[in-house]
Amino acid sequence: MRRTSFADMNCSVARSLEIVGEWWTLLILRDAFLGVTRFDDLQRRLGIARNVLTARLDRLVAHDILERRVYDEARDRADYRLTAKGRALWPVLTALRQWGDEWLYDDQPPLLLEHRSCGNHTHATMACDSCGEPLSLTDLRLVPGPAATGDELPG
Amino acid sequence: MRRTSFADMNCSVARSLEIVGEWWTLLILRDAFLGVTRFDDLQRRLGIARNVLTARLDRLVAHDILERRVYDEARDRADYRLTAKGRALWPVLTALRQWGDEWLYDDQPPLLLEHRSCGNHTHATMACDSCGEPLSLTDLRLVPGPAATGDELPG
Repeated sequence: MRRTSFADMNCSVARSLEIVGEWWTLLILRDAFLGVTRFDDLQRRLGIARNVLTARLDRLVAHDILERRVYDEARDRADYRLTAKGRALWPVLTALRQWGDEWLYDDQPPLLLEHRSCGNHTHATMACDSCGEPLSLTDLRLVPGPAATGDELPG
Repeated sequence: MRRTSFADMNCSVARSLEIVGEWWTLLILRDAFLGVTRFDDLQRRLGIARNVLTARLDRLVAHDILERRVYDEARDRADYRLTAKGRALWPVLTALRQWGDEWLYDDQPPLLLEHRSCGNHTHATMACDSCGEPLSLTDLRLVPGPAATGDELPG
């Protein structure tokens, strides 16, 4: 089944989804963030078909989101570890988790986020890196940037 | 083609992806956040097949993420607008956009985020809602929450 590629769209959201938006991929990354690094462990935890897991991992390695490190050459067994580019996805997974915590688990979720340095349970809120204030949707707008071609914004 | 459902997994990330993780869905929501509300406008901007767009919109309406408001009964034309549950997804899209801006556009993206109240271009950073400090991946850990069954964390 051929699906449309988002890679040609001039949009950071579309191009990001082209890489991490496939079915299973963000769940594989969720487990990578939890420290699950081995094929068999991922396969068992996720209940994913082995050929699908292989394809998803290969794609993440090709895009430098996971690094494949062979630990048993004779058996061709490898670890899959997040690269810097992969670790940079933590806000995506955190935002997704928090949305589910609130709207699908009614704030009684399976896992809580703990902030080590303050010792409390935390919710990540979004703050402005310019003024430091909390951000809200109504306080934000998108404007053309350096790579704009003019078609990005409607109307 | 039947795909695995994530709805039975006891995980906020998995259950969120079950609803918003289908191919196209987050791009439809991207456009909804940009104020694109009509079927034909979505279809034209996204270049998506009409039957796929219909299926995705119906699913988002069923999950109370979009609200369908008929504006022309005779022609059965409707607007699709974000509900509170849908608007709450803005951090997910913002995090995804920012990752693409940095890693796929080398910080020269098509669109920039402007913080209305401070007047500057902004990047949303994640802050702790308990102590107010910026969060980093290494400063966070996941711990069992109210709905934990014991299988969520590895090892």
